[in-house]
Amino acid sequence: MQLLTVGSVAFDAIQTPFGKSDKIIGGAGTYITLAASFFNQNQGLVSVVGEDFPSKTLQIMKSRGIDITGIQIPKGGKTFFWSGRYHNDMNSRDTLTTELNVLETFDPVVPEHFKNAPFLMLGNLSPDVQRKVVHQMDQRPALIAMDTMNFWMDIAMEELHQTLKVVDLLIINDEEARQLSHQYSLKTAAAKIMELGPKSLIIKKGEHGALLFHEGSMFAAPAFPLDEVFDPTGAGDSFAGGFMGYLSCCGDLSFNSLKIALIAGSAVASFCVEKFGTQRLEEIAIEDIHERMSVLHQLTHFELSAYGAV
Amino acid sequence: MQLLTVGSVAFDAIQTPFGKSDKIIGGAGTYITLAASFFNQNQGLVSVVGEDFPSKTLQIMKSRGIDITGIQIPKGGKTFFWSGRYHNDMNSRDTLTTELNVLETFDPVVPEHFKNAPFLMLGNLSPDVQRKVVHQMDQRPALIAMDTMNFWMDIAMEELHQTLKVVDLLIINDEEARQLSHQYSLKTAAAKIMELGPKSLIIKKGEHGALLFHEGSMFAAPAFPLDEVFDPTGAGDSFAGGFMGYLSCCGDLSFNSLKIALIAGSAVASFCVEKFGTQRLEEIAIEDIHERMSVLHQLTHFELSAYGAV
Repeated sequence: MQLLTVGSVAFDAIQTPFGKSDKIIGGAGTYITLAASFFNQNQGLVSVVGEDFPSKTLQIMKSRGIDITGIQIPKGGKTFFWSGRYHNDMNSRDTLTTELNVLETFDPVVPEHFKNAPFLMLGNLSPDVQRKVVHQMDQRPALIAMDTMNFWMDIAMEELHQTLKVVDLLIINDEEARQLSHQYSLKTAAAKIMELGPKSLIIKKGEHGALLFHEGSMFAAPAFPLDEVFDPTGAGDSFAGGFMGYLSCCGDLSFNSLKIALIAGSAVASFCVEKFGTQRLEEIAIEDIHERMSVLHQLTHFELSAYGAV
Repeated sequence: MQLLTVGSVAFDAIQTPFGKSDKIIGGAGTYITLAASFFNQNQGLVSVVGEDFPSKTLQIMKSRGIDITGIQIPKGGKTFFWSGRYHNDMNSRDTLTTELNVLETFDPVVPEHFKNAPFLMLGNLSPDVQRKVVHQMDQRPALIAMDTMNFWMDIAMEELHQTLKVVDLLIINDEEARQLSHQYSLKTAAAKIMELGPKSLIIKKGEHGALLFHEGSMFAAPAFPLDEVFDPTGAGDSFAGGFMGYLSCCGDLSFNSLKIALIAGSAVASFCVEKFGTQRLEEIAIEDIHERMSVLHQLTHFELSAYGAV
């Protein structure tokens, strides 16, 4: 089934304790669609790049089943550029440069042939831009998921609340969940957040995995245990992309299907962080992802029935 | 099967954002044996208290199947006293008072009738005291587990290394694992630590659950999702006690049995933090623990077979 994503396509320059990247391709929209493409080759991306953006990269997207007619290229525009440096623990980072460029005036336009897409993923963008996309759909999608970040909670909480009201699923990290809910306990935070609109919530916890809250039920997915995280950039977006890719491919919105989608997202994200940028996602195949999904299953599987008393 | 524990029995005074306790009963040995008593009523505790320690508490221990003949009561001695204050996030705390008292000169003596115990738990004490207990055993236990803390890594690393060589299982938290291994990734840390002696390792991650490393395999147990943590004191010891209690009761050292023991420890610890001190552990029954073990199973259970391609 069709999956439509709105999200940034960008240039990134990244510094980690392990090294420094050149100016490479990044952006939420890039990571989400690339990650989803392992499961679904019927995708559209709504975004904006500058004339400096390599057409080769757009061609690679196309070759992976990503429709790029929704990517605007304004005359004379320059692509969004972000550069940042990760601290030694890889859990925090400093932004060194943010040049919004074409993203500053981005007015998303959903192509006609995606206005009935049953799956819609709103990557991290201003809540107003996210809502504009929802309003352009001819038919209410079966699932609308969104990402956001603390930045929007700081400067656009009211707009964020408006957008939360029109989505089904919010995907954020633990720090953001605490900021949005003013609660420390993630279980209590989840209850507060779901009162704002979304009937499902995923809280990402980095190396500690992710939690899914859905209609009164809860699921804890582990993170794939890695010897080393080389570059965390794009991990959250790859997770969301793997999740939405799996869901939109299987088309099943049951709790068990959401669980497997979480495991799929976790597996894809674990590859993303092994090299700079999208490099690792461009190298792997669906079989590699399936293998890690099996490892994640073994990692948490146990049989209580072996214990008579339970 | 017999489970022998060595660990402190203490008075604690605790401050959390929710309130302040009186001078209550605490200590690693207390929490471990109390937690284990749900699964095993054939336990011994080697410890030391002062003449100020209430005999009523010792009688409660006895009534739960804990042999207290190994608890010394030196004449004129005062019981170990600790007081501390938790920060708002409950993940860190300041020690306000530490009065070692009788613990300062504690020379553990294993009662004759526990010298063949097949399960031995070394609670957090100086590595030298822990090793003294191991050396008093007539027969090498089937499983020797130990706890330790960063304090001993700071002041007695050499002695700690000696003790690590004679145990099978080390139970520590993530911060301690990183300090002991000088590695950030917990997977890499585990490999380094197991080179020091223990063939099994449990890394506790508080609200994020615990990891078990055992003979090249790995298992991730979730923490029971609570609305609120009221008092984290004793959570780690309750976890270890629940784990060892289950294992020593079933007597099976297979990987699946270790997994269930981890879930048992996780369930017991989740009760411990709901009230001050040992209060909650004294209220609950084994059925309550079984119920949370089932919830923990549901929390992580998923079927990949529903997904054709895996």
